[in-house]
Amino acid sequence: MNEKKRIVVIGGVAAGASFAARARRLDEDAEIIVLERGPDVSFANCGLPYYVGGEISSREALAVQTPQSLQALLKLDVRTRCEARAINTASMTVDVCSLEDGELEALPYDALMLAPGAKPIVPQLPGIDDPRIHTLRNLQDMDRIKKAATTAQKVVVIGAGFIGLEMAEQLQRLGLQVTVVEMMPQVLPQLDAEMSLLMQSELEVHGVEVILENGIKGFRSEPSGLVCELQSGRTVQADLALLSIGVRPETEIAKEAGIRLGARGHVMVDTYQRTSAPGVYAAGDAVESIDRISGEASAVPLGGPANRQGRVAADHLYLGERARPYPGSLGTAIVRVFNVAAGLTGWTERRLKLAGRPYEATLVNDNHHAGYYPGAQPMTLKVLWDPKTGRVLGAQATGFEGVDKRLDVLATAIAGKMTVEDLCHLELSYAPPFGSAKDIVNLTGFSAVNALDGLVRMTHTLPDPETVQLVDVRPRPLFEAHPIVDAVNIPFPTLRSSLDLLERDVPVVTICAFGKMSYFAARILHQEGFSVKAFSGGIRGSIDPRSPAKLPTG
Amino acid sequence: MNEKKRIVVIGGVAAGASFAARARRLDEDAEIIVLERGPDVSFANCGLPYYVGGEISSREALAVQTPQSLQALLKLDVRTRCEARAINTASMTVDVCSLEDGELEALPYDALMLAPGAKPIVPQLPGIDDPRIHTLRNLQDMDRIKKAATTAQKVVVIGAGFIGLEMAEQLQRLGLQVTVVEMMPQVLPQLDAEMSLLMQSELEVHGVEVILENGIKGFRSEPSGLVCELQSGRTVQADLALLSIGVRPETEIAKEAGIRLGARGHVMVDTYQRTSAPGVYAAGDAVESIDRISGEASAVPLGGPANRQGRVAADHLYLGERARPYPGSLGTAIVRVFNVAAGLTGWTERRLKLAGRPYEATLVNDNHHAGYYPGAQPMTLKVLWDPKTGRVLGAQATGFEGVDKRLDVLATAIAGKMTVEDLCHLELSYAPPFGSAKDIVNLTGFSAVNALDGLVRMTHTLPDPETVQLVDVRPRPLFEAHPIVDAVNIPFPTLRSSLDLLERDVPVVTICAFGKMSYFAARILHQEGFSVKAFSGGIRGSIDPRSPAKLPTG
Repeated sequence: MNEKKRIVVIGGVAAGASFAARARRLDEDAEIIVLERGPDVSFANCGLPYYVGGEISSREALAVQTPQSLQALLKLDVRTRCEARAINTASMTVDVCSLEDGELEALPYDALMLAPGAKPIVPQLPGIDDPRIHTLRNLQDMDRIKKAATTAQKVVVIGAGFIGLEMAEQLQRLGLQVTVVEMMPQVLPQLDAEMSLLMQSELEVHGVEVILENGIKGFRSEPSGLVCELQSGRTVQADLALLSIGVRPETEIAKEAGIRLGARGHVMVDTYQRTSAPGVYAAGDAVESIDRISGEASAVPLGGPANRQGRVAADHLYLGERARPYPGSLGTAIVRVFNVAAGLTGWTERRLKLAGRPYEATLVNDNHHAGYYPGAQPMTLKVLWDPKTGRVLGAQATGFEGVDKRLDVLATAIAGKMTVEDLCHLELSYAPPFGSAKDIVNLTGFSAVNALDGLVRMTHTLPDPETVQLVDVRPRPLFEAHPIVDAVNIPFPTLRSSLDLLERDVPVVTICAFGKMSYFAARILHQEGFSVKAFSGGIRGSIDPRSPAKLPTG
Repeated sequence: MNEKKRIVVIGGVAAGASFAARARRLDEDAEIIVLERGPDVSFANCGLPYYVGGEISSREALAVQTPQSLQALLKLDVRTRCEARAINTASMTVDVCSLEDGELEALPYDALMLAPGAKPIVPQLPGIDDPRIHTLRNLQDMDRIKKAATTAQKVVVIGAGFIGLEMAEQLQRLGLQVTVVEMMPQVLPQLDAEMSLLMQSELEVHGVEVILENGIKGFRSEPSGLVCELQSGRTVQADLALLSIGVRPETEIAKEAGIRLGARGHVMVDTYQRTSAPGVYAAGDAVESIDRISGEASAVPLGGPANRQGRVAADHLYLGERARPYPGSLGTAIVRVFNVAAGLTGWTERRLKLAGRPYEATLVNDNHHAGYYPGAQPMTLKVLWDPKTGRVLGAQATGFEGVDKRLDVLATAIAGKMTVEDLCHLELSYAPPFGSAKDIVNLTGFSAVNALDGLVRMTHTLPDPETVQLVDVRPRPLFEAHPIVDAVNIPFPTLRSSLDLLERDVPVVTICAFGKMSYFAARILHQEGFSVKAFSGGIRGSIDPRSPAKLPTG
C-alpha cells in the first residue's frame, strides 16, 4: 500500500473529476494528474444553456472548480490545455502534448482513467463550415453562442432533443425568433410520441416554430443571412444555427491504443469500469456500460452516470473486488422548457416494441397535488410494464410541476425491481401542497392492476367509428367546446339511465377528458353486458395535451 | 354472484368513501348505504387548516363530494346525520339513528365497513369546556375556528405536531399572535430532535412563540380572556385555543359489538382489512394495521393508508384471496409551515432506540438542486439503516424545496427493501432546475457506505473538548462569524500544511458547516495517522439549522 501511485486522468469534467476526487479520498499519497484539453476543468456543462439565456447570470458559477481550487482541495495536478495524444498500454504511458507550447511528454501511469467525453455530431453537409453554425459542448462554445445571439434575430435549432429544446427556450428568452427543426415526427424523440405533445404545445405557445419530420439538407450563405435547406425543400432563414442532433464518444485515442470499443465506438467497460487494457479505466459519455433492465450494452451520455462511474472506478482501483460494481444505467433524464417538464426513466414503448419485448402501457392523468389546494396542475404519467411479472420497465412523465418527483419514484421502483402492484401501495408523502392521498403513481398502479385483473380492457388508439360506438362521457358543455367527431355524448351521471341509447351488439369505446371517467363508464357497461374498452389516458393523454377535465368556471 | 349484496359503510370520509367507490366499480348491482354522522361526506379533511388561513378560499373546494354527487356518480345511498349506534354481528345488522328525527332502524348487511375514523384527544383538565377551546376534525369545527379567529388576537396552539403547526401558520397568516405549546422538548415530536430545528426556527422567524417541554395544566377564564396554565407554572393569555395533541380511534361501537380491538383501542384487522367479525371490514384511522418494516401492529391515522385500505377491503369482498393484501404502513408524512417542509417515512432514530433495534444514522446536507442554478436551497436528509444488512429503515428530510421528493424516493426504497448501497446508484432525474448529478439521496448512500466500509468514523455529538481536539475546517470568516467554542480553526485548504498544529496522540474531531468538508478532512487526517472522527451533518445538521456553507458575498 505504501508505494506512491501515479494516476493519470484524461478529461477533467464529470467522470474524470469524480474519479480524481474519490481517488484522493482513498489515497492521500498518490500523484494524480488530470489532463484537460480545454482551458476549464470540472465545469457545469448541464448549465451552459441557462447562461446563454441569462437564467444563470454568473459565468463563474459554471466554472465549478479551477486547477487552483482542485490543487487546494484535492492536491490534484490539473494540466489544462494539455492533450493526451496516444496511450501505450504496454509501457503504460500517455503521450501528452501541451497546447500552449507544443511540448511533448510521455507520462507513465500506474492507473489511467479515460474520461474524454463525447462531442456533438456534425454531419458533413454543404455549407456546414459557416461560422454562424454552432454546437454547444463547453464554456467557449457557450461564449460564442451568447455573443452571436446579441446581434442575431432569427435562430434555427436543429434537433429537438433535450439540449436543443433547452437552447430554444433560452434563445427565445433573449427575444430571438426561434425555429426548431427535427427529423422525427415529434419533439423529444427520446420519449413516446404522446408524451411529447405537451412540450410541443408549450414551445408553440411561446412562439417557437416547430418543424417536424424534416431533416437538414445543407446551408447556404446569402446576403440576407444563413439559409438552412430542409429535406422537404423548405428553407429556413437564420442568423445563427445551433446543431444539436446528438453526441459521439471521443474515443479515437482509445481505439488507436487497441482498447476494445463497442459497436458504436464507445469504450467497453466491465462493471468496475475496467477497459480491456490493464490499469486503464474509463467512465462517462465515452463508455458503453450496461442497461440496468436488460443487462445489455448501453451508452448513456448523462452527468449522473458519469459521476457515479468515476467513483466506482476509483473504488475498484483501491478496494479491488470489495468495491461495489456499477449496476448499469436507466437513462433517467428530464428537461424543463418554459413551464413544462418532461422526462423518462428506463425503457420507452418505442424501444420495447423495437426489441420485440412483451409489454403493457398504462397512462394516467391527474393533478400533481390535491385538487382542492390552489395551484394544482394536471400531469401525465406513463408506465411500461411486463405483462407476465408486472415488473416496471420504464416510465415517462410530463406536466408543469412534480414531474421530477414521479420520475424519481419510478426510477427507484425500477432499480428495486418493483412491480405495478407495488406502485399501488407506495406510501408517498401527502399534505395538500405536495401530493394527494392517492398519488398519480398509486393511480397508475391501480390502473395497471385493473388491466392485469381483467377488470377493464383499454384501447390506446381511437378505433374506427364504423365498427364501434364511441361514447364520450364528458359533461355536455365540455363535449361541445372540444368535440370528438363521431362520438355520442352521454355525460357520465346520466349513463346508467341512458343505456337504451346504445346498441347492445356493437362494441363500445368509452372516452373522457383524463381517462378516469371512461374507466368508470367501462365498468358499468361491462357489468351491463356490453363489450367495452376504455380509451386510455383520455383526450388529454394522446389527442390534446391541454384538454381540460372541466370548463373554466366564472 | 347474482344475489344483490347489501353493503353498509359506517363513516363516509377517506376509508369509507374509497371502499364504497371501489365496491361500486366491482359490483354495479349492490345496494351500498353510507352512514355519516356529520352533515358532510368525503370532505378534504387535510385541507381544513388552509381554509382557516384563507390559503384555500373556497369552502366548496373542501366538500369534495355531496350525497347527491355520490348518488349520481356511484349510485351510493348516502345518509348524512345518521349515526350507527350498535352492530349486531350475529344477526348482521346495524342499529342506525337518524339525528334529524331520532328515528331508529335496524339495517341488515351482507358486508359492513367500519370507517369511523379518529377523534381529537381532549384531556379532562380544569376549564377544558371553555367555548374558546377548539379541536379540528371536520368542516363545522373549521367554521367555528375561522369565525373565532376573526375577533381573536392571541391564539395558543397546544401540540406542535403536524396539524398543530399547520394551524399555527394559518392563524399567524390571519394576523393573530400565535403561541405554540408542546410537552416534548422539540416541535414535530414525530421527528428526531435535530430534524425539527429548522422548523422551530421557521416558526420563530415568523413571530410564532414556541414553548417546549411544557404541558398544559388547565384553563382559567378571566376578564382579560382565556388563561392557559402550563405545567411549569407559566401562563399564556389567549382569545382562542386549539388543542392538537393527537387522536384516538372512535371504536366504542366496535368494542361493544365484541369486535377485537388492539392494545390502544384500534380495531384489529388482517391484511385484507377483515375484523374478527364475519363480513365486517375496517379501515382508516380507527384500525391497527401492520408496520411495513417490522411486521408489528401499527396504527397510522393518515389519509393515504386510509384510502388504500378501503380499496383493499372492497377488493377482498369481491375477489377473496385473489385480492392483493395491504402491505402495511410506513407512516410517511410531511408538513409545510411557512417556507419550510419536514417529514419522515419509516422508523426514526428515537423509535429504533426505544425498540433496541441496531441501527446506523447518516445525516447529509446538500442543495436541493445544482448549486450553480439560481434558487438552490440547502436541505437535510437523515437515513436510518440496518448495520448488518444495510437495509434502509427510515428517513427524515427538512428544507425549503424538494423535501417531498426525497421522502418519496426513500419511501419507495424502503418498500422495495433496498439498502444504503442501492441509494448510491439510484439514477434520479437531473437537469439544473430539478436536481444534481449526485443527488442528496446518492450522497446519503455514499456517506453510509463510507461508514460501512470503515473509511470514516462519524460522531453525532460534539465530544468534550477536554478529551479531543476539535478542528473546524470552515473558512476563517465563517468561523469567526459563527464560532464553535473550543475548536481550533484550520481552514480546509490549509489542513495538509498545518498538521504540525495538531497533537498526534490526541484524538481529533473534524467539524464543518454541512458535514462534507469534515469528512474530507477526516480522510486526510486518518491517512496521516491521526485517530479521527468527523462530526456528522456539520453545524447545520444538529447545532444551527441555518448555518451557511459560506458567508454571503457582495
